[in-house]
Amino acid sequence: MKNTFGDLVSVTLFGESHGPAVGAVLDGMAPGVPVDSEAIARALSHRRPWGEFSTARREEDEYQILSGVFRGVTTGSPIAVVIPNRDTKSADYDELASLARPGHADYTAYVKYGGFADWRGGGHFSGRVTAALCAVGAIAASALREKGIRIGTHIAECAGVKDVPFSDDPGREIGLLAERRFPVLSEERGEEMKARILAAKEDGDSVGGILETVVTGMPAGVGEPFFDSTESKLAHALLSIGGVKGVSFGSGFAFASMRGSETNDPFFCDGGRILTKTNHNGGVNGGITNGMPLLFSCAVKPTPSIALPQETVNFRENRNETLSVRGRHDPCIVHRARAVVDAVTALTLADLLTVRFGQTYLSPVTP
Amino acid sequence: MKNTFGDLVSVTLFGESHGPAVGAVLDGMAPGVPVDSEAIARALSHRRPWGEFSTARREEDEYQILSGVFRGVTTGSPIAVVIPNRDTKSADYDELASLARPGHADYTAYVKYGGFADWRGGGHFSGRVTAALCAVGAIAASALREKGIRIGTHIAECAGVKDVPFSDDPGREIGLLAERRFPVLSEERGEEMKARILAAKEDGDSVGGILETVVTGMPAGVGEPFFDSTESKLAHALLSIGGVKGVSFGSGFAFASMRGSETNDPFFCDGGRILTKTNHNGGVNGGITNGMPLLFSCAVKPTPSIALPQETVNFRENRNETLSVRGRHDPCIVHRARAVVDAVTALTLADLLTVRFGQTYLSPVTP
Amino acid sequence: MKNTFGDLVSVTLFGESHGPAVGAVLDGMAPGVPVDSEAIARALSHRRPWGEFSTARREEDEYQILSGVFRGVTTGSPIAVVIPNRDTKSADYDELASLARPGHADYTAYVKYGGFADWRGGGHFSGRVTAALCAVGAIAASALREKGIRIGTHIAECAGVKDVPFSDDPGREIGLLAERRFPVLSEERGEEMKARILAAKEDGDSVGGILETVVTGMPAGVGEPFFDSTESKLAHALLSIGGVKGVSFGSGFAFASMRGSETNDPFFCDGGRILTKTNHNGGVNGGITNGMPLLFSCAVKPTPSIALPQETVNFRENRNETLSVRGRHDPCIVHRARAVVDAVTALTLADLLTVRFGQTYLSPVTP
Amino acid sequence: MKNTFGDLVSVTLFGESHGPAVGAVLDGMAPGVPVDSEAIARALSHRRPWGEFSTARREEDEYQILSGVFRGVTTGSPIAVVIPNRDTKSADYDELASLARPGHADYTAYVKYGGFADWRGGGHFSGRVTAALCAVGAIAASALREKGIRIGTHIAECAGVKDVPFSDDPGREIGLLAERRFPVLSEERGEEMKARILAAKEDGDSVGGILETVVTGMPAGVGEPFFDSTESKLAHALLSIGGVKGVSFGSGFAFASMRGSETNDPFFCDGGRILTKTNHNGGVNGGITNGMPLLFSCAVKPTPSIALPQETVNFRENRNETLSVRGRHDPCIVHRARAVVDAVTALTLADLLTVRFGQTYLSPVTP
Repeated sequence: MKNTFGDLVSVTLFGESHGPAVGAVLDGMAPGVPVDSEAIARALSHRRPWGEFSTARREEDEYQILSGVFRGVTTGSPIAVVIPNRDTKSADYDELASLARPGHADYTAYVKYGGFADWRGGGHFSGRVTAALCAVGAIAASALREKGIRIGTHIAECAGVKDVPFSDDPGREIGLLAERRFPVLSEERGEEMKARILAAKEDGDSVGGILETVVTGMPAGVGEPFFDSTESKLAHALLSIGGVKGVSFGSGFAFASMRGSETNDPFFCDGGRILTKTNHNGGVNGGITNGMPLLFSCAVKPTPSIALPQETVNFRENRNETLSVRGRHDPCIVHRARAVVDAVTALTLADLLTVRFGQTYLSPVTP
Repeated sequence: MKNTFGDLVSVTLFGESHGPAVGAVLDGMAPGVPVDSEAIARALSHRRPWGEFSTARREEDEYQILSGVFRGVTTGSPIAVVIPNRDTKSADYDELASLARPGHADYTAYVKYGGFADWRGGGHFSGRVTAALCAVGAIAASALREKGIRIGTHIAECAGVKDVPFSDDPGREIGLLAERRFPVLSEERGEEMKARILAAKEDGDSVGGILETVVTGMPAGVGEPFFDSTESKLAHALLSIGGVKGVSFGSGFAFASMRGSETNDPFFCDGGRILTKTNHNGGVNGGITNGMPLLFSCAVKPTPSIALPQETVNFRENRNETLSVRGRHDPCIVHRARAVVDAVTALTLADLLTVRFGQTYLSPVTP
Repeated sequence: MKNTFGDLVSVTLFGESHGPAVGAVLDGMAPGVPVDSEAIARALSHRRPWGEFSTARREEDEYQILSGVFRGVTTGSPIAVVIPNRDTKSADYDELASLARPGHADYTAYVKYGGFADWRGGGHFSGRVTAALCAVGAIAASALREKGIRIGTHIAECAGVKDVPFSDDPGREIGLLAERRFPVLSEERGEEMKARILAAKEDGDSVGGILETVVTGMPAGVGEPFFDSTESKLAHALLSIGGVKGVSFGSGFAFASMRGSETNDPFFCDGGRILTKTNHNGGVNGGITNGMPLLFSCAVKPTPSIALPQETVNFRENRNETLSVRGRHDPCIVHRARAVVDAVTALTLADLLTVRFGQTYLSPVTP
Repeated sequence: MKNTFGDLVSVTLFGESHGPAVGAVLDGMAPGVPVDSEAIARALSHRRPWGEFSTARREEDEYQILSGVFRGVTTGSPIAVVIPNRDTKSADYDELASLARPGHADYTAYVKYGGFADWRGGGHFSGRVTAALCAVGAIAASALREKGIRIGTHIAECAGVKDVPFSDDPGREIGLLAERRFPVLSEERGEEMKARILAAKEDGDSVGGILETVVTGMPAGVGEPFFDSTESKLAHALLSIGGVKGVSFGSGFAFASMRGSETNDPFFCDGGRILTKTNHNGGVNGGITNGMPLLFSCAVKPTPSIALPQETVNFRENRNETLSVRGRHDPCIVHRARAVVDAVTALTLADLLTVRFGQTYLSPVTP
């Protein structure tokens, strides 16, 4: 178990789906950053299940800040956020004590924790834990915003339907996405996606997708290669999100059929600034930001909880079984995962910037 | 700069392309592991430029082990490997002191290190540094092999040509790949790839590709979620390799158009063992290995060094320029990057296994 | 700020003296460890102010475990413990917004956090935060006890009065100390100490002391030199406790007037075991435990909060001032610091043992 | 094994006493720092055995810088320094394969590494490894000096003889100590110490001592409590030095018989600066520097290698033995340990300053 991530700005997660609460501790955040409760609420609402695309579990997400905030701003001390669990129907999950839901961590947690893990609702492996991550991520995102750094994520593809790509100047799109609980650039494509999600739901099935994120305003010179390149740190954080199974930067896997003359992103001077004409490298050269927008994609697998009966095993008794997952589940988590992608992006960049520029860089005023 | 990676088994890299040497320190390796000089030599030969697909730079890679090995086996103390640089033609690179090669780290290193970085041949950002990584990776791979864990990587795609995929029982294929400097499963497809690489070279251009890796024999229960999932740690290490711009596990980005009922990998009992019928999750559930083969892919961008003239800037004088990269360069590094992928995979898994099972787990005999 | 400590078993602290709560997250603890609420209560009671030697602040320490414990045992997931703050009289501290209490962190926190720190009662620098450390330390200590490892700390010196030293076979003494809120081996010496503490209190002053700790049952071979020697890790943790200003092992500073022939601790075979005849090295050779009892001492400075008027500055206005600290304070914290020393010792050893032997070593049954 | 220390500025050590070389990798050092070969040579000469107080082993310490330095200044990339071993008489040490020298790591290394450790001359546990630490420490110290931060260490006590203490304005004393291979403030006391050392040598015995270090010019606000206080980080590094068994700050263990009214170090304004009238806290309040000189002491145990016959065990055969250590050894290492104390102090402070102020803080010119 390693529930802490980050070198100077770090986050520590705790909690189980059906325990008293989930929570997070954000340490190393610069002092003086305004804590914007609206931004936290928005991040939580983006992650929260809603509408017909989501589990029927009602999550109210009444978060409490236990420390690290004084008179509305960060103090420089660790910020603990706790979100109590409510509306937990543990009885739904009793059979998970011994039956492995395919695609879930039930079996691997059993092997690792020898049967002591809290199996109710997936325990610590539940996506519920990411609610706390979204809350502290929103605090980091506020700090970045004060420095002109903004993050936006859309569903680039879902259930086989593609959204339109980001434009070259994605500022307005980032603004739009902040308002959309189903984050697409083309609302028409979004409707198609939704239709496919509902069709899968009808079938007792689920779908996956791709989230694409852009970050504008990042200064050049950030990232700590060899091993802590900007790509390495972001991918590390992003791949810890349940369901994310791939991360790529810039042209990503499409590089395989391209040539260097296309993908090299020629530099040019634009007044006093140095820019690149294209951005196939996703804003990173040699692991260090080059001042262009960061651009990366996350592959999200179909929700493993499906209503269809599935073959599996009783791992305590080493016996084949058939499982019909009862309880509440989502036919798609791609749109909800967006909130978590935004959160870990903000947290990781806050860390990299603090490593680069010192621990008061993110303070709106110099302490 | 962060040139150390790993929690209990760690590697520290140093060196520049045109300095006296490159090297690596492998710390935390279990005592008693035989150091197989043939395996090191093979790893270095896989990475070394060769034939018409590579730079004309002759790298002899005469490595020296300065510590941590006594009477042919590891001692438990840090293992330092140094590879002196030879045949360095620094004059070729003088203009890199101020001209940014597109797609390279010249400009970002300038921003980060204020003009103090050694620019000759890319300095510390040169792929040359990975020779040392391959040497220590081979030591880690030997230790894994003694535990029945084997790693194989092939070129799944290069210049738009796809290799055949791994079979369900890839043991024999891993053996074959160890012998092949151009690591493909289908030699016919390999010939097509080579033809396309040479065509690009003719054009003064370069190509990219995808490397796919399989690891057999991994025990279930390895990986440290939330943040240090098996996927997170591997992706972190893999994305630190120059040119790698994406990492995905199992079905990866193809998940976006699949359904949960296809991708959930049903469990079944096979005698006393628990296996899955398919392996869309690439051997990992919830960030923890499930005992199935690990399966992941790396996207490798086209080599940024190309012969064609390119637009760029003189970053010291903030002036547009045209650059024709002289010196030696590869039209394709995908096949060579395989050696580095194998190395960081071995190192990362050695670390995860040691975290899980203790620091003598990889000793062939219990110390 | 770095509020996380430990490699595989780690603790993260949060909270301020006058905020809603203090808390700690214990991550990496082995699954299956019984959580002994009596042991937690005892640790908290050892730290809690009591009697005439302590502040009048009443701390009830009603702790809540928010995660990581299921059916009375640890799950392997992070264990979050929260202790709400009550009986906080913040008005007592208003002048601390700008006046530095000598010997406290008020001024240095101001420099570091630019006036954003929560100054009430010392904020995050308050000893109050260590209550949470004691709670999770008690969980770690339970796990160690199941492995036969026991920790005992006494006041070796206080206000110039010395206790008798540990005997060679300190098992019974460890048992006694667990029952004593004023932890001395000689109750007579303890009465002298108390008399001196009360005399200092009369004078509006405070006293310091030395805590000496013994750990029995540690296996040989634990510790990660060069840098993470057993001594280094323990001292790191111990010196993070407010008021602890020195840590020494074995004969410590007395080594300065001794000779090697006295201090070398000759080895001998006792049946199948290897022991040393003396223990000047405090159970550690070359940074690694040798199987003898660990023995170390912590110097604790006099409580900086005293009733006597003191010269100081208003750091916001750069002006000399005289300060009379109002509010509640202890004439001595040495006896209370014992609980924190025991806690960080247990946490640090749990980490070192897990690094050495793997993450299920501390499970009472093999998971 | 953990041979890497430091968060942003880190050092990695390798090498054995009788292997090909010892070495160190310094990573994260700011670019543009002049590498002063004279300062490195001086640090090495302070550590090197000399005169009648030391082993007869001749160490030439011809160091090589393999990376990270270009045109005489640091590049920002890792700096690898290698010092080849010469004049190694391994035959002297053959019996150490199975006989434990009392006070040494032979037995504990055997337990930990299962007989695979290189036992010749103590292998990786030899003080020889610290030569590399001194070399990279000298680079860090140069960077600090450019910022007005200077480090000086004297022998406060040796063989029962005390030196005079540092004055309140120790600048001149730091200068003197840099020139003295036997670092005392009072040369008369130094002669007494030397006489006692030689007397011990005559007896085939050895002596210990206390080193006291002062650091001037440290800015206020440095240190990362709770866990990474300035005291914690320094003690961690200092206690990793072989032979150092205690570290204390300011009045240290003398606090035990002092009162708060004496030790609280009242603040006062001196023009625009805030200072304290006394410095019992050794320049640190609440784990954070307060701008006064850092002041700390290290207890150094008597050299364990003595000529007198000693009782011990053959740990491979579990048999009592008598050992007469042949080979070369020092009757005292206190004066030589000074160089290592200075080195780890410089490295630790460079790290803490970089964490606080960002990674170019130590660059003499802003990159």
